[in-house]
Amino acid sequence: MRDVYIIGVGMTPFGKFLDSGMKQLAREAVENALEDAGVTSDELGLAAVGNSGWGAYAGQLAIRGQVVLRPLGIGGIPVINVENACACASTALHNAWLYVASGQCELALAVGMEKLYHPEKSRVMQSFIGGTDVEESMKMIAEALQSGQNPHTIFMDIYAREARRHMEKYGTTQRQLAAISSKNHNHSTLNPKAQYRKAFTVEEVLADREVAFPLTRAMCSPIGDGAAAAVVCSGDYVKGRDGSRPVKILASVLGSGMDRGEDGANICRRLALQAYELSGVTPGDVDVAEVHDATAYAELAASEHLGFCAYGEGGSLAESGATSLGGKIPLNPSGGLECKGHPVGATGLAQIAEIVWQLRGEAGERQVEGARIGLTQNGGGAIEPEEAAMAIHILAV
Amino acid sequence: MRDVYIIGVGMTPFGKFLDSGMKQLAREAVENALEDAGVTSDELGLAAVGNSGWGAYAGQLAIRGQVVLRPLGIGGIPVINVENACACASTALHNAWLYVASGQCELALAVGMEKLYHPEKSRVMQSFIGGTDVEESMKMIAEALQSGQNPHTIFMDIYAREARRHMEKYGTTQRQLAAISSKNHNHSTLNPKAQYRKAFTVEEVLADREVAFPLTRAMCSPIGDGAAAAVVCSGDYVKGRDGSRPVKILASVLGSGMDRGEDGANICRRLALQAYELSGVTPGDVDVAEVHDATAYAELAASEHLGFCAYGEGGSLAESGATSLGGKIPLNPSGGLECKGHPVGATGLAQIAEIVWQLRGEAGERQVEGARIGLTQNGGGAIEPEEAAMAIHILAV
Repeated sequence: MRDVYIIGVGMTPFGKFLDSGMKQLAREAVENALEDAGVTSDELGLAAVGNSGWGAYAGQLAIRGQVVLRPLGIGGIPVINVENACACASTALHNAWLYVASGQCELALAVGMEKLYHPEKSRVMQSFIGGTDVEESMKMIAEALQSGQNPHTIFMDIYAREARRHMEKYGTTQRQLAAISSKNHNHSTLNPKAQYRKAFTVEEVLADREVAFPLTRAMCSPIGDGAAAAVVCSGDYVKGRDGSRPVKILASVLGSGMDRGEDGANICRRLALQAYELSGVTPGDVDVAEVHDATAYAELAASEHLGFCAYGEGGSLAESGATSLGGKIPLNPSGGLECKGHPVGATGLAQIAEIVWQLRGEAGERQVEGARIGLTQNGGGAIEPEEAAMAIHILAV
Repeated sequence: MRDVYIIGVGMTPFGKFLDSGMKQLAREAVENALEDAGVTSDELGLAAVGNSGWGAYAGQLAIRGQVVLRPLGIGGIPVINVENACACASTALHNAWLYVASGQCELALAVGMEKLYHPEKSRVMQSFIGGTDVEESMKMIAEALQSGQNPHTIFMDIYAREARRHMEKYGTTQRQLAAISSKNHNHSTLNPKAQYRKAFTVEEVLADREVAFPLTRAMCSPIGDGAAAAVVCSGDYVKGRDGSRPVKILASVLGSGMDRGEDGANICRRLALQAYELSGVTPGDVDVAEVHDATAYAELAASEHLGFCAYGEGGSLAESGATSLGGKIPLNPSGGLECKGHPVGATGLAQIAEIVWQLRGEAGERQVEGARIGLTQNGGGAIEPEEAAMAIHILAV
């Protein structure tokens, strides 16, 4: 496989944009990424496009990439429309990486996009349920309604249950989870593209409305609208160009959930081991990471699975300040899904954009000094006992 | 890129299966393909899964591959869920081919699946509209309703309009289109997996209900339910095994629609030229092809774009019997989309299954004698003036 570089990234701000359509959001992200790369769309050899819920949002299925790219004059080239729930933008990047790494083309575009805010709330719910086994989820929802539960929190309930297990097993505290969330809220105040930009103390996080113990609202990612994109190219292509500093993809790994074997190693640990082996990087080498904090607990679990600390120590790692800007291993300098926002289909490439900016030294007030190696971890969907999909990318300058 | 072989194919019969769910259909196709290949799912390094309308059918988005594969014990490996409207199964095969060709894995699975028959007819329509630019189509439908047209034939109207242009330009006749359809109906009587298995004379095709002149109902593909799958592997993997004859993928090309340039070469011609160049095959070398006959006119156009005859001669080619079993270049020995059926997400891999059977000499009564090189052409979706997506595969033994 050939070396592959990211030479351009772009993203819209994340937020609630009832007046912007998907085409508009995608256009902004794609044009930003092409401009950042200093290339024109004529040179592209592939476009891989991820989206999760446009079908639920507005009935758009099947050719979502073509629908947003043709108005930009992008056509003729292979367009691969991919899905993997919250991990679909990373899946798009994985496809773009593969096309270039294998020599199919020199320059490829990956796009992720989502609109979740909709005047009809049921569409948002449809979109989320679409990221699970719908047949099974509809049964769960029927049961929840029968027993008087609120089915809208079923998915956060899964995280809450896992969090309680961790608390029981390792003595992790709700305050430690709140420390993660407070840290991400503080980071987000430094990110002009973040959906929320409000500092929260640990006490304020704890005092927020409870979603499902131990998770309060401030510990959960919101819904959102947005798009992100990246332009990747071959080593040969990089040699012949000026422009912004290329960021090398050291590893691009994708996996799906399974029944856990005897060693219990979950999807994140399995993929992390693969990614570290492929890249020759160790957890200690990673300077900065964007992880999939759909909830504060998800970040805690990721910090352990990714090897930034031992199992059971994710809570104290966060509380120690090690994962804050200025700490040993800053996590989610962007504010993460909790604060930067989580427009499902865009999230994976927004993580990539953040790491690229960090490695190029362009992250402004939230810059991790001297960052040379960065990691993204992006999970998607759920079929018990694991995420349905996950991708890990390791990048370096 | 490494050589890649297809060592197993499977498909369900195509038809109306209100009692079979998507999981059941996918299971049958996947188990058949694995059994045909003589491999177990433990050896797989990737699953690429295509589906077009499950979102419209039952709200299942995002992780459709995982949803059908986990009950079969397939997990852990990368699962790439792909869409490209009617071309999504070919897109899945393209991804599986790429994973093996690039050395990412030795053995990969491609799956295509669809359910279109639904007690609520509006869902079928939603599924089709999802394969276009929905925003634009909704405007067209509103206009059609206002002017008293039947919006349900809008998509067949596009084919009909193209057919009329061809008739005007080249003197093609409705009888020639009927010859294509009659031939496909006759072929389908030899295919136990076909949705329709009834012979039609040219006169009977002409006498059928008009959908949009010059197309009668017998010239149009029906909706349907079904699934198909293929197992692909590397050359190294092939060497070490017994079992059925491996079929080599000489070319796997994917493209998207664009505004036609000055030479007017459409998506099918552009991709055909690529595929012929990559494979070193000429149109005259092709022994048998499955082409995307969503309507009889689409087969006529494909026969020209693929170079089986000159432009303007597609009608006389069909009328001469050259495209019938026993002719110079048999097209759609399976009965094609018109008669074998067209469960959108399954179609591309059903074409592949037919060609694999033909090249292995296992096509029974519809065998093309001595077939050594076969081609599939699978189009999907529409953004004027072209199909939104298309894939061509050239296979050989």
